[in-house]
Order: sequence, then C-alpha cells, then structure tokens
Amino acid sequence: MSPAPFAHLPCPVAHALDVLGERWSLLILRDALTGVRRFADFERSLGIAKNILSARLKSLVENGVLERRPSKSDAREVEYRLTDKGRDLVTVVVALAQWGARWESPAGTAPRFFNRHTGAQLALLQLRDVDGALLRLSDIGYEAPSAAASAAA
Amino acid sequence: MSPAPFAHLPCPVAHALDVLGERWSLLILRDALTGVRRFADFERSLGIAKNILSARLKSLVENGVLERRPSKSDAREVEYRLTDKGRDLVTVVVALAQWGARWESPAGTAPRFFNRHTGAQLALLQLRDVDGALLRLSDIGYEAPSAAASAAA
Repeated sequence: MSPAPFAHLPCPVAHALDVLGERWSLLILRDALTGVRRFADFERSLGIAKNILSARLKSLVENGVLERRPSKSDAREVEYRLTDKGRDLVTVVVALAQWGARWESPAGTAPRFFNRHTGAQLALLQLRDVDGALLRLSDIGYEAPSAAASAAA
Repeated sequence: MSPAPFAHLPCPVAHALDVLGERWSLLILRDALTGVRRFADFERSLGIAKNILSARLKSLVENGVLERRPSKSDAREVEYRLTDKGRDLVTVVVALAQWGARWESPAGTAPRFFNRHTGAQLALLQLRDVDGALLRLSDIGYEAPSAAASAAA
C-alpha cells in the first residue's frame, strides 16, 4: 500500500488522491479554483517543495490550464490564473471532493461548497442523460469511437 | 513538460490524465467501470507491465475500491470487481472523460456514453445547488471545516 502523505490535510480531494495516485497537479488546481494565485501561496497551502511546485506550475501553463501573468496590484509580481480550460476542471475536482468526503474523510473534516448568493449547499454530482433521467452505472452504455471496439458496461 | 505516454489511446480520460498526473489507477478504474474484471484483460487493455498492474490492483483492493474473488464461471480464475466505493467513482471518471473529450481529444476520438435503455446520450455533468440552480465557478463559495480557515472562491 502506498503511503498517504496528504492524510493530514482536511481535504477530501487529497484523501481521494491518496488512493487514486498522483496528486500535485490536481491539488494545485483545487487551490487555484478557490482563489490561490501566487507561487508563495501555493507553496504555503500545499507544503510542497519549490522545485516540484515550479515544475508542476510550468506543466499546467504549458498545457493551457493556467496562465502566468503580472499581478494587477503589483506588476513585478507573477500570478497563475485559471484559463477557461482550467476552470472547466471544477467538475473533476468537485467529483473527487464529493467521493473523498463520502469514502475517505473522517466525519466533519470535509469542506463545504455552497451557492454564495443563497447559501444553498452544492448538490451531489449525478449522472443524467440528456432527457433528464438519472443513470446508475448499470444503466450506462459505452461505445468506443471505433465501432469494432464498442463495448457496454 | 512531461511525456504523454497515453496520447495514442483514443480515450479522453487518458488524455486528461496526461495533463493531470498519475494515470494507472484511474485507468484501471475506467476499465473496471466498463466491465473489465480479469488481470489479463486489464493488461491487454492498458498495455501496462505486469508488476505495475499487480501493484496497482493490490492497492485498489487494499483501499476497498476493488474486491478480488473467484470467477463465477471458473473458480480457479480470479476477478477484480468494483465495490460500492469503487462504483461511486463513476462520477470522477465521467468528469475526467468529459473534460478530456472537450479539451484534449482530437475530434471524433472520444467514446460515447449513453442510456442503454433508451439510447439517449449522457448529459454533461453540471454543478447545481440543492435547490436546482446551475452554478458557475464564481457562484460557488467554499468553507473549510475549521471556521478560522474559511475562504471563498
């Protein structure tokens, strides 16, 4: 069993990724999605070595998930901001967070997501078809792009 | 920039994880969710070294995501089956698949998910609050479990 270096973080995403594999890139994204922008703030939040953080940020910029640009408040300072492609990962991060909260986090340690205009809690992500029907795993068919390789769950 | 060893696979999950980090565990889960159960079938599907596949399966079993048991059709044969905890990861895998399909996969290479009873296509996962309101990233508040550490996006 692999070690669980993030078990001390009160974050279900971290707990989920302790089970699922590599973590830093998605944890950086988690932070970016909650408003972290500066190198020093990522470093403090994640407790990550400078050289690893630097390599991960570079890769996320190269992959178009983050963009690197001067801070609006101080042009000498660099910020990492989510692109549209990066913002679109919120569903992945929330799915990991909800799974981690359900299966891996001690009770009461999961962060709460809510509608900031009304305070209403975030609903669990659910799989539905385009007609609105709720789907369980056994209801879902799967077709590979090559017809020959098609399969169903 | 890290290499992209899965770029040849026609799978948006693989493409997403080429960007996001470690891959094998989630790719094993992707396969398990589409019905793969036997070691040799995971091996063939993933093109993964036996020792790495063996270690990843062991870890997923130890973490309660898969269970290892004799095949119903041949008791000498071992199968890896998803637990409830494992099945619950379908949202994570679909979120990765939809993101990868949108941002990382060449057009026409993404698999299609559908309601196998009606053929209706799977809808995009969307974040909603418990009242049903659709939320964008800027609408979502975030509260850490410790009130002192609370923050909003």
